[in-house]
Amino acid sequence: MKIGIVGLGLIGGSLGLDLRQQGHKVLGVSRNPQTCELAVEMGAVDEASLNLASLSQADLIFLATPMEAIVTTLAKLTPHLTPETIVTDVASVKSEIVSNCVPLWWNFVGGHPMAGNSNQGIQAAQLHLFQQAPYVITPLETTPTQAIKTLETIAKTLGAQVHYCSPEAHDRAVAWISHLPVMVSASLIAACETESEIHVQKLAQQLASSGFRDTSRVGGGNVELGVMMARYNREHLLASLKQYSDTLTQLTAYIEESDWSAIATFLQDTQQVRPKFLRE
Amino acid sequence: MKIGIVGLGLIGGSLGLDLRQQGHKVLGVSRNPQTCELAVEMGAVDEASLNLASLSQADLIFLATPMEAIVTTLAKLTPHLTPETIVTDVASVKSEIVSNCVPLWWNFVGGHPMAGNSNQGIQAAQLHLFQQAPYVITPLETTPTQAIKTLETIAKTLGAQVHYCSPEAHDRAVAWISHLPVMVSASLIAACETESEIHVQKLAQQLASSGFRDTSRVGGGNVELGVMMARYNREHLLASLKQYSDTLTQLTAYIEESDWSAIATFLQDTQQVRPKFLRE
Repeated sequence: MKIGIVGLGLIGGSLGLDLRQQGHKVLGVSRNPQTCELAVEMGAVDEASLNLASLSQADLIFLATPMEAIVTTLAKLTPHLTPETIVTDVASVKSEIVSNCVPLWWNFVGGHPMAGNSNQGIQAAQLHLFQQAPYVITPLETTPTQAIKTLETIAKTLGAQVHYCSPEAHDRAVAWISHLPVMVSASLIAACETESEIHVQKLAQQLASSGFRDTSRVGGGNVELGVMMARYNREHLLASLKQYSDTLTQLTAYIEESDWSAIATFLQDTQQVRPKFLRE
Repeated sequence: MKIGIVGLGLIGGSLGLDLRQQGHKVLGVSRNPQTCELAVEMGAVDEASLNLASLSQADLIFLATPMEAIVTTLAKLTPHLTPETIVTDVASVKSEIVSNCVPLWWNFVGGHPMAGNSNQGIQAAQLHLFQQAPYVITPLETTPTQAIKTLETIAKTLGAQVHYCSPEAHDRAVAWISHLPVMVSASLIAACETESEIHVQKLAQQLASSGFRDTSRVGGGNVELGVMMARYNREHLLASLKQYSDTLTQLTAYIEESDWSAIATFLQDTQQVRPKFLRE
């Protein structure tokens, strides 16, 4: 197949490395000439261009730009496409993307390969990034079956585990396990900063160890990604924040009431439930 | 020196392994005969007994029992001691322990070696557990200088980094970086469980990855330890929970107001602050 990738960052570049290795011809598009050069040099694409028109012959195109650029990119891309071209995206929020992209292109299917590492950019691209990772495909009832099947086949050749759900179910699920943790974790760091006694704050910094490090990790991470989560998954994130706040209030009440057995029950429950969220 | 250790679990056993290697004579006390046998077999103690009277000749005694047993253990221990014996503890909360132990024994100095792993019991004991770990010593104005110096010397030979502060400063600091994270993390797990749509909850479990794993780790851990934190550090934990809740409410308000630049500023700040809490 001829596969186009718009946006040559960590995800776009990693897709290119795998897909080329499988024998596909990969055409990349980036706004940055240096990124184009580097992508060719690294073997992430066969050819790279600044111009979306270079993808006119592609069978399948991945939109792998930052989330806020996906819809506008698709609008600029469609005049160059033949009707058979399948377009998908890799954004981590789906409802808003899918509902805006489907009217622009009949053969669009939303997708979310849930892989990454703490680095960004084409330099961070790596082979087999998607192996064992979830790849969520979020078709609508109107989405052409052929587009869905093609994306599923490609996702499986990447070694990913394919899941199907509606854009809304995806966004609700990732609000719980990805976006809520960022806000919970960031608030922990910010709250620790409010300690008014300087010597206590300094002591806290000196004594913090793996528990704090792990709980604060995603809250001290990529700022742009955090803002995008809030912006594009606002409604579901707010719902999960409301529920989280209620849960925290309940636990706090147990502590206020010195109800040690209620706290024990609460923590036994979380200890038992957590493994359900851990894949092998 | 002759060193006594009451409570032969992970911390007591690991202290014994290191102290014996340094040439001290280590006398252990446990309520469990099998633990006594195992501690001798493992080389964690020279001798082990069920009887506190066996420590009558000790120069320094570590109380390394579970937190709730420390004060009662000291009360039973003191009739057997000569006045020169220094007694310390290893509890992770200090104000309540120190204020109850000092009236029982003039030569008591509170301590908190902040090391551990996810296992419990003498089987988990290991050499060099305290290397590079913080060792907080929390004397009062009335604490004999000799007791403080002796404990500091021992802590340094364990390779630990010694910090001095008041019991209250210790408890306030660990509320922020150790006890608050447990409650924040446990509430995340419990909140995710409230998702009413079964297919969304199942999907969330399938899609959860390293972000959720790290943020939820301490909230799905040792139940007894979590209850002890709430019980013995109740006041400081409640203060930090109140502040945390206010911070989370503020961040939630930014999301409600779609104030993306405020969210970006918030997350830039947490990204900048976090490294202060990470030791090399």
